[in-house]
Amino acid sequence: MNSPTGRDRPRVVILGAGFAGLRLARSLRGTAVDVVVIDRQNHHLFQPLLYQVATAGLAAPDIAAPIRRVLRRNKSLRVIYGEVTKLEPDKKRVWLGDEALSYDILAIATGAGHSYFGRDEWAEFAPGLKTLRDAQDIRSRILRAFEAAERIEVEAERGPWLRFAVVGAGPTGVELAGALAELARKILPGDFRRFDSGMTEVLLIEGGPRVLSAYPEDLSQSAERQLEKLGVTVRCDARVTMIDADGISINEGERIAARTTIWAAGVQVSPILEGLGCPLDRAGRAHVSPDLSLQGQPDIYVLGDAAHVEEAGKQVPGVAPAAMQMGKHAAQSIRRRLAGKQSRPFRYRDKGSMATIGRASAVAEIGRLHLRGYAAWLAWLFVHLIFLVGFRSRIVVLINWAWAYIGYRPAARVLAELAEDGQAEAPPEKL
Amino acid sequence: MNSPTGRDRPRVVILGAGFAGLRLARSLRGTAVDVVVIDRQNHHLFQPLLYQVATAGLAAPDIAAPIRRVLRRNKSLRVIYGEVTKLEPDKKRVWLGDEALSYDILAIATGAGHSYFGRDEWAEFAPGLKTLRDAQDIRSRILRAFEAAERIEVEAERGPWLRFAVVGAGPTGVELAGALAELARKILPGDFRRFDSGMTEVLLIEGGPRVLSAYPEDLSQSAERQLEKLGVTVRCDARVTMIDADGISINEGERIAARTTIWAAGVQVSPILEGLGCPLDRAGRAHVSPDLSLQGQPDIYVLGDAAHVEEAGKQVPGVAPAAMQMGKHAAQSIRRRLAGKQSRPFRYRDKGSMATIGRASAVAEIGRLHLRGYAAWLAWLFVHLIFLVGFRSRIVVLINWAWAYIGYRPAARVLAELAEDGQAEAPPEKL
Repeated sequence: MNSPTGRDRPRVVILGAGFAGLRLARSLRGTAVDVVVIDRQNHHLFQPLLYQVATAGLAAPDIAAPIRRVLRRNKSLRVIYGEVTKLEPDKKRVWLGDEALSYDILAIATGAGHSYFGRDEWAEFAPGLKTLRDAQDIRSRILRAFEAAERIEVEAERGPWLRFAVVGAGPTGVELAGALAELARKILPGDFRRFDSGMTEVLLIEGGPRVLSAYPEDLSQSAERQLEKLGVTVRCDARVTMIDADGISINEGERIAARTTIWAAGVQVSPILEGLGCPLDRAGRAHVSPDLSLQGQPDIYVLGDAAHVEEAGKQVPGVAPAAMQMGKHAAQSIRRRLAGKQSRPFRYRDKGSMATIGRASAVAEIGRLHLRGYAAWLAWLFVHLIFLVGFRSRIVVLINWAWAYIGYRPAARVLAELAEDGQAEAPPEKL
Repeated sequence: MNSPTGRDRPRVVILGAGFAGLRLARSLRGTAVDVVVIDRQNHHLFQPLLYQVATAGLAAPDIAAPIRRVLRRNKSLRVIYGEVTKLEPDKKRVWLGDEALSYDILAIATGAGHSYFGRDEWAEFAPGLKTLRDAQDIRSRILRAFEAAERIEVEAERGPWLRFAVVGAGPTGVELAGALAELARKILPGDFRRFDSGMTEVLLIEGGPRVLSAYPEDLSQSAERQLEKLGVTVRCDARVTMIDADGISINEGERIAARTTIWAAGVQVSPILEGLGCPLDRAGRAHVSPDLSLQGQPDIYVLGDAAHVEEAGKQVPGVAPAAMQMGKHAAQSIRRRLAGKQSRPFRYRDKGSMATIGRASAVAEIGRLHLRGYAAWLAWLFVHLIFLVGFRSRIVVLINWAWAYIGYRPAARVLAELAEDGQAEAPPEKL
């Protein structure tokens, strides 16, 4: 291989240590390449449980593992904690600020962020959930809203602080709404004096006709029933037209006064991919060849949520198992290339999907099997604990869950600081 | 009782839900008073373990419990998440921003912050450790320093990033220095490629002649030996004359190039006490009467680190057991007052003190018994686990520790975010 890095061993640079990037890096162990993994976080994040950090069920370190630690055994691998600011595919290098790093093979697995569909000004009022920082921000807003309500003497004015809107009823939105309803109805009661936290309203706002639209219809219906049983108000066919600090507007001028809104609607891939000069889909994902490399740029792979992969006309979903399979496949492709062999097309093996709603409440689709309620929740719990392999915290998470399950105890209801004015964001009130 | 609040039951307002305030609030359960607890955090903090959060051994929620949760059973008690900005003792009320709250009895248990001995400009370069936010800030600085060192190609330039200075060799300084040395020598090795983290220098800088000056001399000596065995360089009789981003200066112009400095030297009580018009000591603590109320202001108690209490000419130390004893005593005094009885003087029962240095390394003074090394560490572990009563996380903390003890695994090495420039605070370097 003609190496621009001038090294004996080709250098594989991996952008992002999410499920795809991490799996690729791990799978390259023992291959005669030098690997550099670049991430702007120092940790790999178990994103499927991020909603639990946002709703104060788990602590941040419970679902994060230091990237260096996870990859420490691979001695021909280096981790850089930094952010790639520019790609230069014609010179086979990437830039981190004003440092250049050349590569022989580049794998882009930068994941996805939120999209506000062109209304970026909503981000301030309706944060999305992708990073630990997002989760901690959302947790702060939720806990502070209850604190603010407690400071208000006039009952009528308390409403907007005790109304939470979650926009988007995909898995993240469903999980957030369910966990929020449980927090309000099962964990907080008794903690406040001026209101009954059981009266909290949680609204799940969905633009389409049903929740969990990627699931079969019977499971959507079941999820909706389970959500309502938990106390979530599901509003389908509700298009958001405005979000501000006081609430959101939907459809033709209907107004919902909610001081806390969480965004779980749109996905947008990092704009870094625009530097590739390849076709991108509407969410910014790169259309890749069957072997996951770019058409005409066989030394660049795009993996995970950043990749648009189609199989039999159907898009491979942006879920952790798909990302891991892509990482593993890319490692194999790289090995075949180094051996001068033809690469093989990627095949997604769908092992099913599941979304949790609350305690003993979930839906799962595993092949032809449709599970709901307790059975689905057990399946979900089992799969998520199995997946936490490599985390220090499988046992800690298990205990937190068992603890919460037995007694609805609080786990991580911690605010690191007051609001900047020192007054918990509550309006001034006589006491 | 002549109540300015015009209520049937007198109102006791407690500022601060640390060890003293929380114990007072709990002890007042069943007493015919209304209690209001005000804290600018939403959680009670188990401060003796805060250094473990700062050195990535525990997660923030492991050592914090929501105040509302801890006090939820007391139905005549209300918690306000906010900050008292002014005391008005003549009108028997306190102010939270522009809200006034009147009281019949006020208990001030606001704890202590850092003092930079008039050099507040050092705070930016040498953060102190009092809150969860402080701990997370220090953890970020430590982890980022290692990341920065990994980005530097020239070995000679790496030194200042791999040199950590802890100023002040009281219990907090000793614990921080020991935990830092263990992080560098036992947990991180193997994670970095460009340097051996075992070469990290940890300096413990003390102005006085020995570490742990409040302990008997033989234990100080033992602590110093144990610290050096862990790889900490102890510098006594070293007065800090300057701290900036590049390092610190001590004595007559000696310069130590360290990019990370932690302040564990001075204690300063909240300036809110200045509004009391009572005599304060040098650290701002209020001199209290033997029953812990203020001379001439029997409706105001000052407790915990905010109080200067002397017994037989010796100051009661600013430790958790003393604070809890004061809280309990104040509750008793309040009950006696309500019953028209004379209050009793506070008596501090010294149950001993202990400081941990590292894994299986500590010193303890329990009456005449002086323990060191493994025995002291076991005693320390036992006492700290017992004290964690009321926290969700006793079992989680225990598992984290067991885990760390067996395998020196990482626990909470998580950075929530990159530095603002997105480049891990490393100087730009070619890769």
